[in-house]
Amino acid sequence: MPELRRCPITHRWSIIATERALRPRDFKVDHTRPPRGRQCAFCPGNESLTPAHIVRAPLDAKAPWQVRVVPNKFPALRIEGDLDKRPEGIFDFMNGIGAHEVIIESPDHDFKLHTLSPAHLLLALKVYRARIADLENDPRFRFSMLFRNHGEAAGASMAHGHAQLISLPVVPHQVQELLTGAKRYFDFHDRNVFDDLIRQETQDGRRLVHDGGEHVAFMPYASRFPFETWIVPRDDQPSFEKSTDAQLAALGETLRTVLDRLDRGLGDPPYNFILQSAPYGMSEAKPWYRWHLVVMPTLGRVAGFEWGTGFYINPTAPEEAADFLRSLR
Amino acid sequence: MPELRRCPITHRWSIIATERALRPRDFKVDHTRPPRGRQCAFCPGNESLTPAHIVRAPLDAKAPWQVRVVPNKFPALRIEGDLDKRPEGIFDFMNGIGAHEVIIESPDHDFKLHTLSPAHLLLALKVYRARIADLENDPRFRFSMLFRNHGEAAGASMAHGHAQLISLPVVPHQVQELLTGAKRYFDFHDRNVFDDLIRQETQDGRRLVHDGGEHVAFMPYASRFPFETWIVPRDDQPSFEKSTDAQLAALGETLRTVLDRLDRGLGDPPYNFILQSAPYGMSEAKPWYRWHLVVMPTLGRVAGFEWGTGFYINPTAPEEAADFLRSLR
Repeated sequence: MPELRRCPITHRWSIIATERALRPRDFKVDHTRPPRGRQCAFCPGNESLTPAHIVRAPLDAKAPWQVRVVPNKFPALRIEGDLDKRPEGIFDFMNGIGAHEVIIESPDHDFKLHTLSPAHLLLALKVYRARIADLENDPRFRFSMLFRNHGEAAGASMAHGHAQLISLPVVPHQVQELLTGAKRYFDFHDRNVFDDLIRQETQDGRRLVHDGGEHVAFMPYASRFPFETWIVPRDDQPSFEKSTDAQLAALGETLRTVLDRLDRGLGDPPYNFILQSAPYGMSEAKPWYRWHLVVMPTLGRVAGFEWGTGFYINPTAPEEAADFLRSLR
Repeated sequence: MPELRRCPITHRWSIIATERALRPRDFKVDHTRPPRGRQCAFCPGNESLTPAHIVRAPLDAKAPWQVRVVPNKFPALRIEGDLDKRPEGIFDFMNGIGAHEVIIESPDHDFKLHTLSPAHLLLALKVYRARIADLENDPRFRFSMLFRNHGEAAGASMAHGHAQLISLPVVPHQVQELLTGAKRYFDFHDRNVFDDLIRQETQDGRRLVHDGGEHVAFMPYASRFPFETWIVPRDDQPSFEKSTDAQLAALGETLRTVLDRLDRGLGDPPYNFILQSAPYGMSEAKPWYRWHLVVMPTLGRVAGFEWGTGFYINPTAPEEAADFLRSLR
């Protein structure tokens, strides 16, 4: 059983993921590259290599699947069991209850999210929404994080594209901080910080990547990394899973535009894509928090300074990066 | 001039480092490896390839140098100028005033910190102490971070080993959080959390790597990464730069033990080494905060989940990693 352990100083949790355990000797640094090209468990015909699916689309089992959701074979957290919280001396322990699902958005081994047809991408976004909403029904879970790691340098262990969804029995400290920051802004200004971001970025225009109407894509003023891009909805909604079909279709268009330009501009860079949505049951977050999507190309390394301070050194001004992406229309 | 920019939601700062500017086209992903073996600017005889030294040891200019401190040629922050703080719409801007120094601990191109003689390592630690203490005299600086990136995967851009020291005009939010966490613990328990950590880790023993008397090396209960190791002094001192010569000599022995075992056990892994010391002028932190040194081998990748939540998935329990290092006596 995995373990959740909390640092008594920073209150940051770590998952000690015994299900994917690596023995100390496994880390011996080896400069040969791992062999490639073994059978892909995410390709059609190899469904038996993954656990049975949780859901597939279309639902009709006779039609070939277009999107398939399976439990992670090496989950960071386990779905079965009751929550067990206890002290361990001065430390906080919790057993690693949680969900860890894999969402394979296309049967095509080499697909990219932005090369899917609009209808197929919309289907994938609807599956994201459905899985996040379904896991809310489990009273043990307080927060879900949907993310994508594209490319080996971004942490992808499978070449066949996929998203992952992890549901947690706690709200992570960093997410709590994001909420607290947005709340503090609202309490002081009586305005939603995401509205102010959209207003300033669309009027100023220097960091704007694309204004899709329903959603605005821009590079944040204090970007941590070159080409970090946020997609923020104009509709005041803290929870992604409350999006309507029409909103998801519009999101697909903006997402396609951003990912296509990053792909063309940077030559298929590795990236992480993170859906920052409110914790479950936070309807009171309505006036002050808003879900948003963060795309972070993996173009540098996090080193000692960043680890020690949480302070990022970004060698490319977001104004310049956004200007470059806008030029790729 | 570099810029410091603050996120209005998380209050996290980013340095937009225009001095080391990368143009958008520089990021085009290229799978060829950079050429190696060009002339090393940190080797003796090539001193003219770096800016003039700030200090060298020994001081006698006729003796060959053993440790040399130079300004970073591509600094993230600039040392000259007055602080300029202003709003930029809803954002916070500060010009990038700060120090960025490089400490080359040995003239030997291939040295590792733990293969230096005890006297040479002590000299290096004394230079760390002297540089941190000297920068405290600059009233613009509130915090210094000393760190080492060893190996390319850990972010080292030069093969010749070196530490870096960055002094900042603000206390980073993450450092503030560390202090706040330690203060909160002290206020509730009336005990220093670092004393409690040392007590539990030495009595329990499962996560202990080495008890050097003056300093204790252990793997934290909620380790973020495999083999993350902390070195904590028994003496109640928030600021590293207040260490005595005898304490630095003892630290050298514990540091050598830890780095030697990581090297032998993992085959010269890349690592980051981070000196977490109190901000300048925080003598009141005495009863509740304590400096400590964090060694983090770079054995995995930070991916979407960690970026989005600040929650780490660690595939190796610290008990197992520590047991392995203890077996390498």
